[in-house]
Parts: sequence; C-alpha cells; structure tokens
Amino acid sequence: MTTSFAPLQNDTFLRACLRQATDYTPLWLMRQAGRYLPEYKATRARAGSFMGLATNVDYATEVTLQPLERFPLDAAILFSDILTVPDAMGLGLSFAQGEGPRFAKTVRDEAAVNALAVPDMDKLRYVFDAVTSIRKALNGRVPLIGFSGSPWTLACYMVEGGGSDDYRLVKSLMYSRPDLMHRILAVNADAVAQYLNAQIDAGAQAVMVFDSWGGVLADGMFQQFSLEYTRRVLAQLKRTGVDGQEVPRIVFTKGGGIWLQDMKALDCEVLGLDWTANLGQARAIVGGQVGGPGKALQGNIDPNVLFAPPEMVAAQARAVLDSFGKPHTDRTTTGPTHIFNLGHGISQHTPPEHVAALVEAVHSHSRALRQA
Amino acid sequence: MTTSFAPLQNDTFLRACLRQATDYTPLWLMRQAGRYLPEYKATRARAGSFMGLATNVDYATEVTLQPLERFPLDAAILFSDILTVPDAMGLGLSFAQGEGPRFAKTVRDEAAVNALAVPDMDKLRYVFDAVTSIRKALNGRVPLIGFSGSPWTLACYMVEGGGSDDYRLVKSLMYSRPDLMHRILAVNADAVAQYLNAQIDAGAQAVMVFDSWGGVLADGMFQQFSLEYTRRVLAQLKRTGVDGQEVPRIVFTKGGGIWLQDMKALDCEVLGLDWTANLGQARAIVGGQVGGPGKALQGNIDPNVLFAPPEMVAAQARAVLDSFGKPHTDRTTTGPTHIFNLGHGISQHTPPEHVAALVEAVHSHSRALRQA
Repeated sequence: MTTSFAPLQNDTFLRACLRQATDYTPLWLMRQAGRYLPEYKATRARAGSFMGLATNVDYATEVTLQPLERFPLDAAILFSDILTVPDAMGLGLSFAQGEGPRFAKTVRDEAAVNALAVPDMDKLRYVFDAVTSIRKALNGRVPLIGFSGSPWTLACYMVEGGGSDDYRLVKSLMYSRPDLMHRILAVNADAVAQYLNAQIDAGAQAVMVFDSWGGVLADGMFQQFSLEYTRRVLAQLKRTGVDGQEVPRIVFTKGGGIWLQDMKALDCEVLGLDWTANLGQARAIVGGQVGGPGKALQGNIDPNVLFAPPEMVAAQARAVLDSFGKPHTDRTTTGPTHIFNLGHGISQHTPPEHVAALVEAVHSHSRALRQA
Repeated sequence: MTTSFAPLQNDTFLRACLRQATDYTPLWLMRQAGRYLPEYKATRARAGSFMGLATNVDYATEVTLQPLERFPLDAAILFSDILTVPDAMGLGLSFAQGEGPRFAKTVRDEAAVNALAVPDMDKLRYVFDAVTSIRKALNGRVPLIGFSGSPWTLACYMVEGGGSDDYRLVKSLMYSRPDLMHRILAVNADAVAQYLNAQIDAGAQAVMVFDSWGGVLADGMFQQFSLEYTRRVLAQLKRTGVDGQEVPRIVFTKGGGIWLQDMKALDCEVLGLDWTANLGQARAIVGGQVGGPGKALQGNIDPNVLFAPPEMVAAQARAVLDSFGKPHTDRTTTGPTHIFNLGHGISQHTPPEHVAALVEAVHSHSRALRQA
C-alpha cells in the first residue's frame, strides 16, 4: 500500500515510545473517546448501538477525534473494541445497553476449540478502513494508535462468554485441559498478529496489546498462558508503517506490575502499568539508562482521581510524574522516558473539565520537571 | 478471664506462624466453612439468613467445625463476616439471597463521618461468645483463628454501601476529602483493634486482618490509607492469649504482592499472599534466614485450581509448595516457614472431594519436601 498521509506535526508520543528525549511528557488516555463526553453519547445515539458505532467508518472517525477537539492530547487511538477478533471468528459479539460485551457462542469444549481458526481479515475490513479514515482525518496532528486484546484476554471472553468476577470457566478449562487452552491461545495469537499488521498497513503508527485480564492469573500461569502468547504476537508484528517509520509496540497487562522482571524480556518498546505500580521502581527495573537499552513506561494514574476537584487532580498528576522522576533530556541518544496515561480506561462518570485539568497539569509540570 | 481450654493437640499451624520448624506444611482454607459444603447449606437453611447464622452461637460453632469433620485441616477460623464492626456502628448490615453484603446506611459526607465512633463491644458479644463456644467445641484439636476486615476494607463497604466494581465512591472521597477518609480509618482501626483483642480474650489463638480491597489502591495511597491503619491496629493488639500463649498476627492484602517491601515493616508474624505472588520471591524479600528475623508466609493457590480433576489439583498444590521451597527444619531456632492456603476464599461451586485431594497433596508432598 502506498497511501500518502500528511506529515506528523506532533511526534512527542512516538519519540517517547522510542525512548527519545521530548520537551514534555506526552499523554493520552485509555478510552479517551467514550461515554464521559456528551458528544460521544450523541454520536452513539445516532449509530443506534456500540457495534453500529464501531463498524461504521464515519462514526468511528468522528468519535476518535472528539477528545482531541477538547484536549491537547498527544495521540489518538482507534475507536473500536478489544473483542472484534473473536467476533470475526464467528462468536457473535453484542453489547446490551448498560452491560458489558457478550458472545452468542462460547468456546468451552474440544469441538468448539477445534472449530476455531484465524478469521479471514476481510471480516475486519471495517476496522482497517476506520484506521485509514482516522489517519486521514487527523491530518498529521498527532499519531494514531491501533490496538487489540491480548490472546489471553480474548480467550477469557471467548470461554466465559462475557465478563466475569472470578474467571471460573476459563480457569477451569486452563487447569483441567491446558492442551485446549494452548490451542485457543495459539489461534488467538496468530489472529491478533495478522489483525495488528493489517492496522499497521492501514496507517496505524503505534500498536498496543491490551492484556486486560492477564493480572487475574496465578504466578507461573501468567507466564505460560498470557506472556508467552503476547510474545508470539510481538514476534510476528511488522516493524515499520506505511510511511516507512518505526511502529512502536506497547504491551499493557492490568495487574502486571508484579511480573515486570518477566515482562522486561518482551520484544516491545513500551510497557503500560496500572496505578498499583510505582513508576520509579518500574523505571529501575525496565527503564534502562541513558544510551543503554530499556523500555519506555506508560501510565499510570488511577482514573478515580478524576472525580476529585481539579486542584486535587493536578496534584495527583504531579505526583505520578514525580514518581517516574526526570526523564532523560539528551537528544543525541535514547534513555528512560514516560508516556502519561491512566492506569485503566476512563470512567463514563468523569467530568470532562477534570480531564482538562489533568492534561494541563501533565504538560506544564513535565516541562518544569525537565528544568529541575 | 480465666476460662480453661483443653490443651492443643496439633500446634503445626501456630508453630509455622512463629517461624518454628514443623514436620509438614500446615494448611487451612479461607472461607473453609461455606457454601461448597452441603452440610453448611443445611445449617444456613435452618438459620434462615447469613446474619441469622453468624449471630447464633450454636450455628456459628456448628459450621466452623464442619470442614474439620471432612478434612484434616490444621486450623479452624471463626465463622463470621468481615463487616460485623460497621454493623455494630449502626450501619445495618444485610445479605440478600445470592447477593453480596449491603449496608442500610452509608458514610459519604462530613456529617456521617462525624457520627462514627468505636462501637460498644457489647454489640459484638455474639462474636466473642462464638469464639469461646468454638474453642470449647474444638477441644484442643487445632487452633482457632479470629479475624476482622482491615480499616480500609471496612471503609470501602461503609462508603460504597456494598461491593463495587470500581470503588468510585470511596476513592472519590479519598481523593477529594482525604481528611474525612483519615477520620473514618482512624475510627475503624481503633474499633478493629478492640474487636480483635476481645476475640483474643474470648479464646482466639491467632488473629488475621483481611485487607481484601487494599489491592485496589494506587501506589502511595495504599501505604497512606491502608497499610498505615493496619499498622495502627497491630500496634494495639494483645500479644498473648487467655492461656498465656503468643497470639500470631496475620495480615492478608489481596493484590498486595507488589508492596511486599512496604509490608515487610509491619509488626506482624505472618503475611498472606494471593496467587499472583511468587512464594520463592516473597520468601527472599520477607521470609528471613534461619536464626534471623522474618515473616512466615501464608498462601497462595488459585481457588479456581479446585475445579480441575483431583490429580491436577495435587500437581498444582505441589507446584505452590515447591515455589516456596524447602522450609527450614532446625527445631532449635526460627527460620522461613510456609502455611498453605488459598490465595482468596474458596468458591461456592467447589467440589468437596477436590478439597480432600488438595489437603492430602499438601500434607504428603510437604513431608517429602523436608526430606529432599
């Protein structure tokens, strides 16, 4: 593909992903296009349903850009869902009003596992078309992030049929028939890799793997059933985008802070962290030194901070920046860098003006931190 | 009080709590008296409700002993609920069928916080009477553990009014009005300390603080709003029981594995861990050396393992024992010890015969491990 896109005007996010020095700490917010924005709710109402929104290129483009109109965020992220891949496998994804995702079919026995295969990527054309449309609409303003659920996280939903409090069904299968679980995960990993590569071909400038449920696994099982298949995805990913630029790969395991020593070995550029992790300690483990190898860190303020008054939001944002410490500032080499984000998706109940306070605090304090 | 109880026949659990060598690794299971046992369901049906069960000394005694009739467990734990203290504060605890706990009154504003006080312990007499009754009924078979929710965990329920997916209300209060949250926690800590001391006076031989929701806090907030008040509880606890024996103190923070370096400083004998922690790494951080100081570790198999066939249950139990490694065996001094447990409460859907397989595997493999 030789699509030509407008040149990038704000490369702060991509530079930080690649451990290059930046003037300030870039930020974006997980689920930044979402229900806390009245304009999102209006578009969703027109679309009729969540899947109606996600599968329509114009709507997906519109909502992806909405938060950028309000806040000077440093990246956009494709508006979609982490469960599009199993939907394309024929499991029938739907979202009931006010409920989480649900699959019409589940994968709980050998016959269902044997029937699984990497889906025809044409069934996910609506996603790739949305990526291209959004990239064009961004017009070089900020980079566009593509994403997928991790093999393990997809498997959780495929086995459970939806969300779960205790992951009883998926863990029962894993502990009883590890062979079947490995087969599900192998299919998922290859599907996720093809899916992300197609997003890269469509114009994504960075990709992120959401291992939202890796943290529910026991030590030992996480390494075998989540991390190993994230590794398998990463090994298959394209390293350059349609414009010839390097495409950074971000891995976010919610609850994964306890396994940073294991995640250090992943072949990716950025590790995302939730709010339970201490960014300074994480930097010491995986952030590396100036001129040496390492990973950029992304995160990790508790989204619930955004319910506090703006001055409290700003204070907590400064505390998160301070916990990482001063990023490196040497433009001639690489070194420890931080991308500010929430530790998980933004709540639908968040007051948008508090988000504005967060963005302002991150940009201003992170500039000050570099002078300190 | 000078109640005289029968001499203890099986001190394996208490010895392991105090980092003394034992012939095998003792085990008990969080929520071992519960709905997975048909005999429990029969008693609960007679009692009419959960609180009817918990507040009746005879019923509470009966269900506490039920799992010991089935399995050679090494400790009994008082049958009660972690929320009895806020109930005694007048918040009105109830359990709807198939639902979690609910409070009739919540604590969300300054007036409600100001109205809080350490309750008259006479309102919790039913708990202390149950402790004495159970200790008598045990007749020295195994030690009896008393317990309470942690100050932070109680506060979560008091503010939310019940369970929560996102802890939005309690975290909003914490981030918006930290002064009010500190006042709630101070009252809770002093109430919990009095409550546990009264259990010790009634015959409890060890006490455990369940910080079930400490792990939802952000790094930095956990230390200020959970750990600090657990510390305040521990500082007030009696160190010897009615029979003059040392009463070990166990602290369990679900999701706390990432903060072991902070928890190391707690003045308690045992730290409980959930299944995300690696016991070998935890031992290296807090377990200490033979002859030196340290903490015993309790945990940490995933309760979902119990849905696998018995031979898989046994294999996973052995893996958990092996991850801790060989406990010290020098009877002349203290050293690293392990108390086997689940990483969280047992599921109501657990087949009891799988629990039998777990208990057998832990006892036999832990004896073998000591010979290795």
